Amino acid sequence: MKTKKFMLSEQQMPTKWYNIVADMPNKPLPALDPATKQPVTFESLSRVFGEELVKQELSEERFIEIPDEVQDLYKIWRPTPLVRAYGLERMLDTPAKIYFKNESTSPAGSHKPNTAIPQAYYNAKQGIKYLATETGGGQWGSAMALACQYFNIDLRVYMVKVSCEQKPYRKLLMNAWGANVIPSPSTTTRFGRDVLAKDPDCAGNLGIAISEAVEVALEHGEHTRYCLGSVMNHVLLHQTIIGEEALLQMEMAGDEPDVVIGCFGGGSNFAGIGFPFLRRNLTEGKQTRIVAVEPTSCPKLTRGEFQYDFGDTAGMTPMMPMYTLGHSFQPSNIHAGGLRYHGAGSIVSQLYKDRLIEAQSVPQLETFAAGMMFANSEGIIPAPESCHAIAVAIREAKRAKEEGCPRTILFNLSGNGMIDLYAFEQYFANKLTDYDLPESEIRRSIDELEQII
Amino acid sequence: MKTKKFMLSEQQMPTKWYNIVADMPNKPLPALDPATKQPVTFESLSRVFGEELVKQELSEERFIEIPDEVQDLYKIWRPTPLVRAYGLERMLDTPAKIYFKNESTSPAGSHKPNTAIPQAYYNAKQGIKYLATETGGGQWGSAMALACQYFNIDLRVYMVKVSCEQKPYRKLLMNAWGANVIPSPSTTTRFGRDVLAKDPDCAGNLGIAISEAVEVALEHGEHTRYCLGSVMNHVLLHQTIIGEEALLQMEMAGDEPDVVIGCFGGGSNFAGIGFPFLRRNLTEGKQTRIVAVEPTSCPKLTRGEFQYDFGDTAGMTPMMPMYTLGHSFQPSNIHAGGLRYHGAGSIVSQLYKDRLIEAQSVPQLETFAAGMMFANSEGIIPAPESCHAIAVAIREAKRAKEEGCPRTILFNLSGNGMIDLYAFEQYFANKLTDYDLPESEIRRSIDELEQII
Repeated sequence: MKTKKFMLSEQQMPTKWYNIVADMPNKPLPALDPATKQPVTFESLSRVFGEELVKQELSEERFIEIPDEVQDLYKIWRPTPLVRAYGLERMLDTPAKIYFKNESTSPAGSHKPNTAIPQAYYNAKQGIKYLATETGGGQWGSAMALACQYFNIDLRVYMVKVSCEQKPYRKLLMNAWGANVIPSPSTTTRFGRDVLAKDPDCAGNLGIAISEAVEVALEHGEHTRYCLGSVMNHVLLHQTIIGEEALLQMEMAGDEPDVVIGCFGGGSNFAGIGFPFLRRNLTEGKQTRIVAVEPTSCPKLTRGEFQYDFGDTAGMTPMMPMYTLGHSFQPSNIHAGGLRYHGAGSIVSQLYKDRLIEAQSVPQLETFAAGMMFANSEGIIPAPESCHAIAVAIREAKRAKEEGCPRTILFNLSGNGMIDLYAFEQYFANKLTDYDLPESEIRRSIDELEQII
Repeated sequence: MKTKKFMLSEQQMPTKWYNIVADMPNKPLPALDPATKQPVTFESLSRVFGEELVKQELSEERFIEIPDEVQDLYKIWRPTPLVRAYGLERMLDTPAKIYFKNESTSPAGSHKPNTAIPQAYYNAKQGIKYLATETGGGQWGSAMALACQYFNIDLRVYMVKVSCEQKPYRKLLMNAWGANVIPSPSTTTRFGRDVLAKDPDCAGNLGIAISEAVEVALEHGEHTRYCLGSVMNHVLLHQTIIGEEALLQMEMAGDEPDVVIGCFGGGSNFAGIGFPFLRRNLTEGKQTRIVAVEPTSCPKLTRGEFQYDFGDTAGMTPMMPMYTLGHSFQPSNIHAGGLRYHGAGSIVSQLYKDRLIEAQSVPQLETFAAGMMFANSEGIIPAPESCHAIAVAIREAKRAKEEGCPRTILFNLSGNGMIDLYAFEQYFANKLTDYDLPESEIRRSIDELEQII
């Protein structure tokens, strides 16, 4: 009988995270203090983030040991399965082999606990009692809620208001794990009040929510810090456990991917699956294609510009070198809440600038159609974010059929959609649109940015 | 480092289901045709159920081969992990070792696909195009929706109305997998219309929903059949894959359970985890305690009577020997929708009568408190049904502490509660009650039953 799932034992779980900075031909440009225009320092970042996380943020060490306590908690659901998508292959009648890494098996239903747990761990070890963060689709907020309860940290989550309304169960999930969830923009911060004064009906976006959470961290004293679920180097680092496992599992399967695909919001699951494969391109001369998939309604890689930009809407973060749509960009209300961020992290941006990775954008309806094909053939209901990766895997598999040329495709199933079923209902009811973005809208936001800088 | 999850490879997955009838000292009494009072025949049952399933229903063969096609689909998520609940043990500060079998990892989030897939398979093989079924909490209906899409069977699900309202996402999930969901009682059947005529606000119960689904199957011709997610012998049979795996995994862990615990609705997950361990009691002289856990608001084992009773409210099914609260029993609106059934299947009833298994009942609030302890220590949000098994595992662990006597506890985590988060919200808001049942209410229902028989 054919093997469906390639499983590693707990003993085979990788014990190191991979820091791709060590192998990049051009290192990412430094983040800049907006006041001095000088590179940010360990000291300034440490006022916002836990110290060990800042060390990792600035590190160029190739591999970083995963602490034992973190490994123990990873084992609640890790190693995750690598799955051969026989059902999807059959449905597509393709000569391609399709594999997916199933990150939907964590208690929070996504890959986000891979970094939530070490972030809570390092902060707790430093004596931090309170953390503030933001969440878009809710996957990150719930992962952080899960992680904080293990370490007795009080968590406040600013959740983008439109996502709060679209995904009421996400809020309940965070509450169940003890977190305090506040729809953003809110009246609990100075910046939130400013936004609401200008636009009382503002649907919110990740940039605004980040501003609110950072404001809380900066103003609530020495036992409070901020944490972030994507974009930053240390976050991408923690997620590489995904690809490190997948490397071993593809070997077990006796196969070699021609293309590795991840959906792209700030870069966390994309880097997680992609960077360990990219290492082989950079150091062993392999030529695996690594593809980031973003929504056409938030096309920072495919249609944004490489600029220094703020990570948040208020301009409270350092300025980072990123492919960006401008930090004032207001994305459409697509259901893939985790992909509605205006910029790409500095590592991914540099890799993309150097043409070491690819990017594609997919309209919302194609992603849901792809997600339903996957649900109907493999059984798992995918998260709207993951549907983007599935859509490009299907594009690749169809191309393989047209060209009569077999290939091996690996994508990351970053999460399941059990709590996003409302989105699928909207899709079935023909209530979703594609949100293809006019060039003028992108230009306006970038132009604004250039005036600031 | 300590092993958290004991995993079997796909190659180690058991290839046979276990039929406990072969080893029972007293075989279960036969189901009776209500008109003739004679044992039901293969022919009469085959008008309602798929033929191969009826063969299994009546079989006394000890082991039954799992077809290759079913094994292939099982591998989408099976074998499931056996997990050592170190976190819960620490929280309880108990000398007991606690293990759980994690059946929440299936695409539907519960153990129900274990029988949904073979049921869809055997029906499809026989040429059945349409199936009708009912669902309480929605776990069974969604599993059957998942299974039917693999075999291109049209599925109609009668969902208990109160559950439909409590769990809107369950309906969306069934829709996503292509099933047609109808709140029960409904106007689509004669029996549903009768119920609504008497009580337009009827919240529904499993008995009514079964009557509606059976009516559809009986009146829609040769390509339509009915299927059921619990109670019946063939359903319990399919679920034994859980315990067969757990036997191998406990051996891997080098441990031996003193007590095996499953929540109890109609018997499917309880039999699944329990029967393979019970086999060793019956054939090898072991003395493992096997405990069924039911809600105090639906206490058919602990407070019901052993009687011949109908499986449904309308009295359309054969009469079965069961511990029952009477088929007109209307359970309270607890959130554990899967445990609101009035009777226990005939195998479980006979085993309980012969004191080969135990039963305990737990009030709703204790189950949610237990579920939150589990969520806070192990991370996984349990289904309200599974919270009953957790509650008794915690009782056992506390007793071990009081008595200063270590013991090994195994329970079945039959499903996760991601789609039941509304129930946890109600719990946090102190809006749940215990629903302890007055003796008079149970007596009334049983007395009614005795008048009929």
